[in-house]
Amino acid sequence: MREAVTDPRGLVTDLFATDEAAARHADILEAAGGIPIHLVSGEVLGALGQTVTPQGLVAVARFCDVTLDDVLVNPPRLVTVLYAVRDPGNAGTVIRTADAAGADAVVLTDTSVDPYNGKCVRASAGSLFHLPFVTGVPVAAAVARLRSAGLAVLAADGQADDDLDEVADTGGLDGPTAWLFGNEAWGLPEAVRALADRVVRVPIHGRAESLNLATATAVCLYASARAQRENRPPDG
Amino acid sequence: MREAVTDPRGLVTDLFATDEAAARHADILEAAGGIPIHLVSGEVLGALGQTVTPQGLVAVARFCDVTLDDVLVNPPRLVTVLYAVRDPGNAGTVIRTADAAGADAVVLTDTSVDPYNGKCVRASAGSLFHLPFVTGVPVAAAVARLRSAGLAVLAADGQADDDLDEVADTGGLDGPTAWLFGNEAWGLPEAVRALADRVVRVPIHGRAESLNLATATAVCLYASARAQRENRPPDG
Repeated sequence: MREAVTDPRGLVTDLFATDEAAARHADILEAAGGIPIHLVSGEVLGALGQTVTPQGLVAVARFCDVTLDDVLVNPPRLVTVLYAVRDPGNAGTVIRTADAAGADAVVLTDTSVDPYNGKCVRASAGSLFHLPFVTGVPVAAAVARLRSAGLAVLAADGQADDDLDEVADTGGLDGPTAWLFGNEAWGLPEAVRALADRVVRVPIHGRAESLNLATATAVCLYASARAQRENRPPDG
Repeated sequence: MREAVTDPRGLVTDLFATDEAAARHADILEAAGGIPIHLVSGEVLGALGQTVTPQGLVAVARFCDVTLDDVLVNPPRLVTVLYAVRDPGNAGTVIRTADAAGADAVVLTDTSVDPYNGKCVRASAGSLFHLPFVTGVPVAAAVARLRSAGLAVLAADGQADDDLDEVADTGGLDGPTAWLFGNEAWGLPEAVRALADRVVRVPIHGRAESLNLATATAVCLYASARAQRENRPPDG
C-alpha cells in the first residue's frame, strides 16, 4: 500500500479506509499526501477489496502497465516474458521474483492472466508498482522486438537439452536476456519454444518431475542476475 | 499417485476409485499390483479426498516420515530445515523444490505444519514419497545433530550481512550444508538465527522487499546444488 500511494507516477486516485484502519495506518494516510481519503464502514470496504480478510484500506489506482516501446527506450538487460500463465497468484509471485532479481520488465503475452486481478496484485507484494510490465502483446511480436533490441531469448522448458548450469558456465547468461516461461500446467508449446534462441532446463537433481512456475522462474532469473553481475563485459 | 502406489516401501494400503477414474487411470491401477482396489461413488470419493476437484482416485497410505537418525545413517550433503512454516501449500512446494534440487532430506521442526495435510501432499507433487522427511524435532536439536554430522548450518534471512553470491564465490556452499528457513511471514527469530554457523541473504537486486518462502528456498538450494557439483572436493 505504501508503494502504491507514494508511486511518483501518482497512480492512486482515491483511498478508502475504515476508522480503525485509518488510525492503525496513519503513516500511510500521511504519506498519501493530496490523495482524497474516504472513511467507510467495514462492509463497504470488504465489498471494495474483494477479499475475505480485508486490511481496512483500499486504494483505487489507474492502470499502470506500459508499452513494449517504453520498456525498450533504454535497452533492458533482463526481461521476463510470461506466455499463457493463467493463475493470478503465480503471475503475481513471478512479478515479485522478477523485481527481486533485478529484471527491467515483465511482459504478459495476450494469452496470460490479467495482472490487475486482485490475487495477482496481492501476490506481487507491491512489485506491480515497482516494475514496468506490459500486457496484451502476442508472444511472437514480443520475442521479435526483444531480440531486435539485442536480447538473447531463452525459453525455459523442463525437457530441454541445454542445462541451466552448463549455459551459465559457458557464458550463455552473460549478455542481455529475455526469459520466456510458459503455462503452469503444460509449459511452452513447441511453436513458442521455436521462437527462442535457446531452450534451457533447470536441472532436476532429485526425483521430482519438475519445479513449479514460480520456483523455476526464481532459479533462472537469479542465475541470469548472477552471471550478468559477475561477467558483465567491460563496456556493459 | 503413481509415485505413491509404486513406492518400494509399500506405503499404500488401499486404493479407492470411481468407475470412470478406474478406466481412465488403468495404468496406475495396474502398477498398484497387490494393493486392494475399491470402486466407490463420486460422493464417497469426494469425501475421502477432501478436495473440491477430486481426480477420481484416492490412496490410503501409511505415515512415511523417518527419524533424524535414519537421515544421518549415510552423511547427507544437503538438508532443508523448515522452522515454524505454517502454510501447508508452502511446505509442500518447498519439499518439491528440495527434491528437485537434490536435497537428501527435509526436516520440519516441531513448530511447523503437519506435512500430511492434504494441501501439503498435493503441493509436494509426489515428492513426499521421494524425499525422506522428518517431523516434530525441536530446531535446536535438529541443528545440533546436523552439525555433529559435519554439515555447515546456514540460516536464510533477508536482513543478513552475508550475500548468497559472495558466500558461493568464497566456497561457503561447497561442503555438506543444512539450510534453515523460517516462517513465511516473520522469518527466523533471533534465537534461531543464532543457532546457525552463518546467516545468509538472497540478494535483492530490484525494489521488491523480499522473496516469498518457496522462491527463496529455490534460489538457496540451487546455489548449493551448483556449488557442490562444481566444487566437490576430490574425496567427496
